[in-house]
Amino acid sequence: MNEIKELGLEIRVDAVGNIRARLEGNNKDGPVVMTGSHIDSVRNGGRFDGVLGVVGALEAIRVIKEQNIKTNNPIELVIFAEEEGSNFGSTLLGSKFMVGRYTVDDLKKLKNSDGKTAYQVIKEFGLGINNYSAMGFKPSEIKCMIELHIEQSVVLDKAELSIGIVEAIAGMKTLRMVFRGVANHAGATPMGLRQDPMVAAGEAIMFIEKLAKEKAYPSTVATVGRISCLPNVPNVIPGEVAISVDVRDVKSEGIDIIISELEKEIKQIAKARRLDYEFQIIGQSEPVVLSADVVKAIEDTVKEKGYSYMRMNSGAVHDACMLADIVPVGMIFVPSINGRSHVPEEYTRYEDIKKGCDVLLGTVIKMAE
Amino acid sequence: MNEIKELGLEIRVDAVGNIRARLEGNNKDGPVVMTGSHIDSVRNGGRFDGVLGVVGALEAIRVIKEQNIKTNNPIELVIFAEEEGSNFGSTLLGSKFMVGRYTVDDLKKLKNSDGKTAYQVIKEFGLGINNYSAMGFKPSEIKCMIELHIEQSVVLDKAELSIGIVEAIAGMKTLRMVFRGVANHAGATPMGLRQDPMVAAGEAIMFIEKLAKEKAYPSTVATVGRISCLPNVPNVIPGEVAISVDVRDVKSEGIDIIISELEKEIKQIAKARRLDYEFQIIGQSEPVVLSADVVKAIEDTVKEKGYSYMRMNSGAVHDACMLADIVPVGMIFVPSINGRSHVPEEYTRYEDIKKGCDVLLGTVIKMAE
Repeated sequence: MNEIKELGLEIRVDAVGNIRARLEGNNKDGPVVMTGSHIDSVRNGGRFDGVLGVVGALEAIRVIKEQNIKTNNPIELVIFAEEEGSNFGSTLLGSKFMVGRYTVDDLKKLKNSDGKTAYQVIKEFGLGINNYSAMGFKPSEIKCMIELHIEQSVVLDKAELSIGIVEAIAGMKTLRMVFRGVANHAGATPMGLRQDPMVAAGEAIMFIEKLAKEKAYPSTVATVGRISCLPNVPNVIPGEVAISVDVRDVKSEGIDIIISELEKEIKQIAKARRLDYEFQIIGQSEPVVLSADVVKAIEDTVKEKGYSYMRMNSGAVHDACMLADIVPVGMIFVPSINGRSHVPEEYTRYEDIKKGCDVLLGTVIKMAE
Repeated sequence: MNEIKELGLEIRVDAVGNIRARLEGNNKDGPVVMTGSHIDSVRNGGRFDGVLGVVGALEAIRVIKEQNIKTNNPIELVIFAEEEGSNFGSTLLGSKFMVGRYTVDDLKKLKNSDGKTAYQVIKEFGLGINNYSAMGFKPSEIKCMIELHIEQSVVLDKAELSIGIVEAIAGMKTLRMVFRGVANHAGATPMGLRQDPMVAAGEAIMFIEKLAKEKAYPSTVATVGRISCLPNVPNVIPGEVAISVDVRDVKSEGIDIIISELEKEIKQIAKARRLDYEFQIIGQSEPVVLSADVVKAIEDTVKEKGYSYMRMNSGAVHDACMLADIVPVGMIFVPSINGRSHVPEEYTRYEDIKKGCDVLLGTVIKMAE
C-alpha cells in the first residue's frame, strides 16, 4: 500500500479485500487497462507465485509515470484477495467476488479451519463487507486485463524459452472412482479366486495414462493424484480402492473423449474382476479462450524486444480466467525452474523476470495508448 | 479352565500363558499326541478362528473319556497364548515361546499400544515369567501335534468340500517398493514431461498379478495390500508412491521367481519413467511341509467317515507351523463361508464343524492308539 501511495495512485479496497489502484489516462472516462495478480500464498509456498504479477504491474506503472508516458486509457493495478483458497478452501475467492460469481451469501457458507465463516473473518478484519453492493465490477469499465505469472510447470524451462503467451486456459473434470471387492487373506486366497480392487485400480491408472497419451489431443492431460485403500494392510487383499482422476484440456472434446472411454473401460474392468464400482464426476469447469487482441499485443511486444517465446496453454487456473468471460484477457508466463511451484524451491531466473516485466509494460502501453 | 477341570485333566500354564492339559495314556512315559489351537482373537473378529480347534480338542478328549477309549499315548490339549499378535504386534507369540524361538529377552522388547512390554503385562497378570526355564517344550515328549482350524479363505467353500487336509504351509517374502518422481501441477504438466510414480505403481501392480498368475506355480500368490502416495492430492501429480508386496508359496522357487522377475521389471519401469526406486525385502519365512504320517492318518479317518475332502496348502500361518520343524504336525481345515475371517461375519456351518471334530477325534485316536 505504501508503494502504491508513493506513486500517488487512488486506492480502492472492496468488500473482500481486492485492491485496485488507478493511474488516470488522457481519457478519464475511457475503460481501464487492468493488470495485476495476487499476493496471498500457500503454506510452505514460494516467493514468485502471484507476487510477480503484482510487482510487475506496480513496476510497469512506476516506469510509465517516471518516463512521463501519456496513455489514452487509465491503467489500474489490481491485487486479488485469497487466490489460493488457503483460508476457506475456495480458490480465486477475490476474483470470483469481483465478477459476481460469489455473493455475500456465499461468504457466509465458506468456513476456515477454526469454523469461522469468510464473512465473519472479513468483517472482523474491518472491511466494508455490508456495503458490498457499492463495489463490484462493470464490464464496460475495463478495456482488458493482463496478468503476468510464473508458469508453475516445466514447459518453458524444458523448451529453454523466456516468455509464454497464453492462448487458452484448460477446462477440467474431476472424478472419483471406487472399486469394491472382497477383502481376504493375502496368503490363503488363490489368484483365481480373488476379487481384488487394487489390481483393478492399477489397470484403471494405466488405462487413464494411455487414453491421455494416445486417444485424446496433445493438450489433454489426466492425472491420478490421490488413492486410498481399505484396509490398507500388507497381508490383506484390499476390499476397496478409490482413486481421484483429474482430466484437463483446452478443448472440451479432449476431456469428453477421456471421460466416455474411461467410463466404458471401468465397467469392463469391474465386470471382468467381479467388482462393484462407482464412477462419479465431482467437479468441472469449461475451457477459456483468451483474447486474440491481447495475445497479439503481447506477441508484438515480445517480437519487438527479441525475446524467445512460445504460444501455449495454461493447465492451471488464474484470477485472470475469472474475468475472461466478461472482458478481453491476456496472460504472460515466465519459466519456473524444473516446474516447481507451491514449494520453497520455487524459482524463476531474474533475467526472465526482467523480460516478463518488459513485456507486461510494453503490452500495457500498447493496450492503453 | 472349568471345562478342563471337569474332565479331571492335569493343567499346566507356562510363563507366557500357554495352557496344556493332559489325559494319561496306558504308556505314561510315551510321547503325547497334542491337539489344540488358540482362543485369543482380533478386534472386531469372528467366533470360529482359533476357538474351533480348542473346543474341538476339548470335545475329542471328552468323547475319549466318556466312551472309555484307552489309548497308548497320553493326549494333551494345548491352548496357545497371543496367536493373533493383537497386543504386542507379534503373531504366534505363545507358540514361538513354547518352541524356544522367543525368550524372556524378546518379551522385554515387545510393547503394547500403552508402551508396556509383554514381559511387564505377563508379570502383572501373575504368570511365573521369571521361572520360565522350568517350562518349555522337549521334542521327545511330543509324538505329534494336530490342529483343527477354519480355512479363512474361499477354497473349500468354492469347491463345496467339508474337509481340507493341509500338506504344506506357504513360505513368504514381503517387500516394500517405492517409486520417486517429481510432484507437479496436474493441469500444467503435459503427459510427455511427467515423472509420475503413480503410473509406475499401477504398472508394477499389474505386473505382480501377471507374474503370480502366469510365471510361477498355481500355488504362488502375490498381493499388493498397502499403498501410500505423497502428497496424495487430486490436482497434484504424485512425487512418491510406495506399495507393499506379499508373495507366498509352498515352493520356495515360486517365491524366488516372482522376486527376481519383479526386481528386473521394476528397474525397467523406473528407468523408462525416469524415476528413482527402492526395492527392499522386509520379511521372510520358509515354506513348511507337514508330516506325511499325520496327513495319512487324517486322510484315512476322512475316508472312513465318507466326508468330502481335498488335500490343500495353507497360505496362512498357524501355531502348529511353529512346531512343524521339531515334531510331526498335521492340520485339518473346515470351510469358511465366502472365505471371510477376522470379521463378525466369519462363519462355518455347524455340520462342517461336526465333521471337522469327528476327523480330529478319529485322527487323535489313530495317532495315540
